[in-house]
Amino acid sequence: MSDPNDLQALLDEAWRHLTRGVADSRSPARYPTFATVAPDGTPEARTVALRGASRSQSVLEVHTDIATSKVVALQHNPKAAFHVWIPRADLQIRITATVEIQTGSDSEQKWDRVPESSRVSYGTRPTPGTAILDAYAYEKPSDRERFAVLRCHLLEIDLVHLGARHRRAEFICENEWAGTWLAP
Amino acid sequence: MSDPNDLQALLDEAWRHLTRGVADSRSPARYPTFATVAPDGTPEARTVALRGASRSQSVLEVHTDIATSKVVALQHNPKAAFHVWIPRADLQIRITATVEIQTGSDSEQKWDRVPESSRVSYGTRPTPGTAILDAYAYEKPSDRERFAVLRCHLLEIDLVHLGARHRRAEFICENEWAGTWLAP
Repeated sequence: MSDPNDLQALLDEAWRHLTRGVADSRSPARYPTFATVAPDGTPEARTVALRGASRSQSVLEVHTDIATSKVVALQHNPKAAFHVWIPRADLQIRITATVEIQTGSDSEQKWDRVPESSRVSYGTRPTPGTAILDAYAYEKPSDRERFAVLRCHLLEIDLVHLGARHRRAEFICENEWAGTWLAP
Repeated sequence: MSDPNDLQALLDEAWRHLTRGVADSRSPARYPTFATVAPDGTPEARTVALRGASRSQSVLEVHTDIATSKVVALQHNPKAAFHVWIPRADLQIRITATVEIQTGSDSEQKWDRVPESSRVSYGTRPTPGTAILDAYAYEKPSDRERFAVLRCHLLEIDLVHLGARHRRAEFICENEWAGTWLAP
């Protein structure tokens, strides 16, 4: 067993999972829960697909339709939280971030790489969350103008490893990702 | 296949999963993600164990140590969100709630039913989130005074069924849980 007091090894492991999440759709980090705060102060959480992870830039990326409630929430309060549970590693990854919403020409290059079959996720009519009379009374055209990249600039990473004894550590961007052990 | 436009059947299915989550530790609804808002406005999300589910009372219950950050968050903003993904049913359950924090004599009966082995989850020293010098520099005594029940009074349930075509419905407490289809 590696040194249980090696903070950087724990952080390395978390980044391995996040990076794999982008590449492998069967990885548990592919589909984090993404929490935001609605304008009325209510927390909201939903599954998202992880589309980018850069440790050197401290960035995670998610693609979204700009007509969704998460964009409304982020325009009001740009803070977001990611939550991932990695079953085989007994590892909980919690991340807080400030989110930059990229649309128009800023997201153009990324749109070009979205497969045709996935483009229908951006442009649902009527807009997501609108009441409809029938379960299927909606269309899913592809609308490039509705595509946005959520560039999530990481502020803090909180890891809990549920081993025989629990270990919890916090890593903060401001401290250049130096870690601290926390009581779990 | 049942009628895809049967709103109550979809809600029934969600409650079946939530109820099973309380009884069966291997059920996916056993461990929801629970989101709150920290006093500085940052959303927070973590795994919790579902300890109670009453459809007739529109209540979900979670047990916690009162010294955790989620209690600090809830004392400031009593709104919370649950998020559960049920893989075999392709069902996303999202719930918003107002949370009542029960401590002292209000939580006494429930403490009596917490197994001895689980009581160590309430009372960690130093308190959870405190910086420590070594990964294991903490103790887990059992402290009845630190035990709280989070009684979550449900306000809204949002369900997304990812079938061949997606179905999304919203159910609201104020409307006595009548449902509405939404564009997904």
